[in-house]
Amino acid sequence: MERRHRSPETPESCFNLFHMCHCVLAVEMDATEFRRRGKEMVDFIADYMENIEQRQVYPDVEPGYLRCLIPQEAPEDPDTYDDVVKDIERVIMPGVTHWHSPYFYAYFPTASSYPAMLADMLSGAIGCIGFSWAASPACTELETVMLDWLGKMLNLPEDFIAGTTGKGGGVIQGSASEATLVALLAARRRKVQLILADQPERTEAEIISKLVAYTSDQAHSSVERAGLIGGMRMRKVPTDEKFAIGGEALRRIIEEDKKAGLIPSFFCATLGTTPSCAFDHITELGPICNAENMWMHIDAAYAGSSFICPEFRPLLDGIEFADSFNFNPHKWLLVNFDCSTMWVKRRSDLIGAFKMDPVYLKHDHQESGLVTDYRHWQIPLGRRFRSLKMWFVFRMYGVKGLQDYIRQHVRLAKEFENMVRNDPRFEISADVVLGLVCFRLKGSNELNETLLKRLNSARRIHLVPCQLAGNFVLRFAVCARTTESRHVKVAWHHIRELASELLLEQGH
Amino acid sequence: MERRHRSPETPESCFNLFHMCHCVLAVEMDATEFRRRGKEMVDFIADYMENIEQRQVYPDVEPGYLRCLIPQEAPEDPDTYDDVVKDIERVIMPGVTHWHSPYFYAYFPTASSYPAMLADMLSGAIGCIGFSWAASPACTELETVMLDWLGKMLNLPEDFIAGTTGKGGGVIQGSASEATLVALLAARRRKVQLILADQPERTEAEIISKLVAYTSDQAHSSVERAGLIGGMRMRKVPTDEKFAIGGEALRRIIEEDKKAGLIPSFFCATLGTTPSCAFDHITELGPICNAENMWMHIDAAYAGSSFICPEFRPLLDGIEFADSFNFNPHKWLLVNFDCSTMWVKRRSDLIGAFKMDPVYLKHDHQESGLVTDYRHWQIPLGRRFRSLKMWFVFRMYGVKGLQDYIRQHVRLAKEFENMVRNDPRFEISADVVLGLVCFRLKGSNELNETLLKRLNSARRIHLVPCQLAGNFVLRFAVCARTTESRHVKVAWHHIRELASELLLEQGH
Repeated sequence: MERRHRSPETPESCFNLFHMCHCVLAVEMDATEFRRRGKEMVDFIADYMENIEQRQVYPDVEPGYLRCLIPQEAPEDPDTYDDVVKDIERVIMPGVTHWHSPYFYAYFPTASSYPAMLADMLSGAIGCIGFSWAASPACTELETVMLDWLGKMLNLPEDFIAGTTGKGGGVIQGSASEATLVALLAARRRKVQLILADQPERTEAEIISKLVAYTSDQAHSSVERAGLIGGMRMRKVPTDEKFAIGGEALRRIIEEDKKAGLIPSFFCATLGTTPSCAFDHITELGPICNAENMWMHIDAAYAGSSFICPEFRPLLDGIEFADSFNFNPHKWLLVNFDCSTMWVKRRSDLIGAFKMDPVYLKHDHQESGLVTDYRHWQIPLGRRFRSLKMWFVFRMYGVKGLQDYIRQHVRLAKEFENMVRNDPRFEISADVVLGLVCFRLKGSNELNETLLKRLNSARRIHLVPCQLAGNFVLRFAVCARTTESRHVKVAWHHIRELASELLLEQGH
Repeated sequence: MERRHRSPETPESCFNLFHMCHCVLAVEMDATEFRRRGKEMVDFIADYMENIEQRQVYPDVEPGYLRCLIPQEAPEDPDTYDDVVKDIERVIMPGVTHWHSPYFYAYFPTASSYPAMLADMLSGAIGCIGFSWAASPACTELETVMLDWLGKMLNLPEDFIAGTTGKGGGVIQGSASEATLVALLAARRRKVQLILADQPERTEAEIISKLVAYTSDQAHSSVERAGLIGGMRMRKVPTDEKFAIGGEALRRIIEEDKKAGLIPSFFCATLGTTPSCAFDHITELGPICNAENMWMHIDAAYAGSSFICPEFRPLLDGIEFADSFNFNPHKWLLVNFDCSTMWVKRRSDLIGAFKMDPVYLKHDHQESGLVTDYRHWQIPLGRRFRSLKMWFVFRMYGVKGLQDYIRQHVRLAKEFENMVRNDPRFEISADVVLGLVCFRLKGSNELNETLLKRLNSARRIHLVPCQLAGNFVLRFAVCARTTESRHVKVAWHHIRELASELLLEQGH
């Protein structure tokens, strides 16, 4: 850097530099070279996927491991592509947690399928930024239709389907966190305007200071965060023995708050909580929200994908009361990250919360009701052509293939649950409804913390914990697309072995 | 859908369905098929890029064109991959605005390079979600080091470099809009806490209602939006004849607001405004922000990439006064969308605004100072392995190759500017500093609106307008990586022709 700043070039020497740099440009990767390298990368990816089982699922690097493996500055002159590729195994892979290994059982799944990868390659090449209809009509229109396709797979109420005349419709957000935030902001604005219509003398800031939002004490941290960002007080509604909210609990807390002069404005229900995959009772909660004119948002980030199966669809009953609904096909529907699908009953509620139209973003068709400018539906302005991934995946699997995929994971979770139940030393800590099994050794939290530490240190499988009713609990989430019964059996065998060692040491 | 809802299956029939579905799974795309299809896609992409010039840059579809070209529901059984591929040209391409055509001169560029595409393929395959260090150490660590690499290329003050012991550092956001919002939220919290420390009797809501943020009347709409989301009043500071803010203008408005009892808390400076690529005078503005203890954020979304060239780096002088800085390598530094890089002097300011730590996201290394959990730096929780794109691009081009790329675009803009200046019927509407030329026909706004309408209807090139000092102005932004002098000449020739026709009709 110094060099460049000791003697800043004059326009002339910059012009020379331009010529000098032509030799650099001469080696810029062109289409011919990309054909070769791209095909090598396709094979690299296929090899990685085919052999991922042999890789250690959880890395054993120490914090800061990577910095010393590469230079401290970018090279002045280009490296060769071969150097770059060599470094994938030398620098990157040792520090990768392999989310798509069949021995990965942590968090919740993140989706991966070949059709999604192919679509993403195409999306990267088209490289359009679909913030408005005109910025790339196909990008916007395919998204609207794919959200309708998926909405119909879930049998969403007609209000959520855009069609050609609907007032509602869907959008792809980057994450459930953004969807929750966008819903909370729309709720905030709707309530403020409603109150200002009656009492124009009040200020927006004063009204917002009285608004209150609700969610479960089991809800994802991003819900609390949305309240923090939107400046809306967030109350945690206590859950029942199934870790779910029922109508009574919400009604009670709303009454308290109204007595205290607060204004109930937003409720975020969770279908499939992160700790234990519990389901709030939205058939009880929905009517309360509607009666209070509170916005009801449903976050089904993980569980939502299962609702394409008729046997799981009843878990979504009550959706008809909701204003907005979100789940992540990038978790469990084979569409690679990021693809978080959100539907609203009244698109005007979202748009109203954000709309601003500078001249450089205006276009001829803007006034037409048919035209969607998705930038008004989200936090960022720019957006990738993400609906291509949905289109490829839905067509290459078909609804039946997707349903079968969900059912396989549920079946594997049940298989794991049964093995746990058959070992008297263990207990199941929450109902197993979908692909998550919460379990623990009967005994102290310390005992279970030690077991988990040893499991993750052994690095043959990867799990994360949760807290349920004061208990330290292990979460076993079926994650990888390629997970089979044999992997689950190996995992359970390994868990039992480490448990036996541990209990032996402790003199049980 | 009906079928499934008339007779919800029992677990048993679901088990049968599972077996039935095996035949579906049997045709699931596997690694072998992906090797074949992936290589076909690589060729498709190379063909698309090589021949993009022959495609009409701006589509002539009408709103709603796509819906009638595809089924109204997802198929129950899989389609063949060949059907899907056929539909790319039938359904998608007719509605694509080709941002990477050398005849695309609209908005600002969005980056595209082959090394970035290769890295993105790899990122999609690894498919880790790097919300915490443990969720995939390589994902977090490469990002921190790549932000250091880029920060050094820009010769950022040491405070912004993470190194191994720095208090600052960088993060990849999805968009400049998110970076601005995150900065504003951090500013909001810092100011509120500062005041509460002195006056604990005040409420957060009441304090926030007094906070005020500032930006230029030329700033991007996302800045105003950030204020709307964060509930912070936003004042537009008037700009000078160069469409930039100077110190006096800001000082004046701050004094007014302080007299009115407001609390100046946040200033968003723009380097390279969207309408005309104007540069706020941050050497004057910075000291004012520091004196008022206001957070200064610098948004250089487009222009930031040029600061890797020593001859353009002086445009960033004054950065030393800033708390945060952001620009988009996904615009002009050959890293495909999305990659919006943001640096802060004190990472604790960002983390403080968001931090929440549920058990399922805790990990052993969390307490170590070396460990970064990027989820505390951004709005979403999940994040792709985006730093791979930066790593591939920086290494395959080298700093010199990147500098040369920037200089080429600037040279092409100058070439266009000169052609405009040599035609007495036209005028240049703003200084041409980088790759954007703002120009118009001397005469009425209506005349220029008609010219632009005709240009975009002819569909040989694509431009968007802006408003400058009440004038309707055409923006000519050099965008595509492959744009050459011959394309710019063709574009100018075409503009002159349509202008001549228009002026003739109007009897000039």
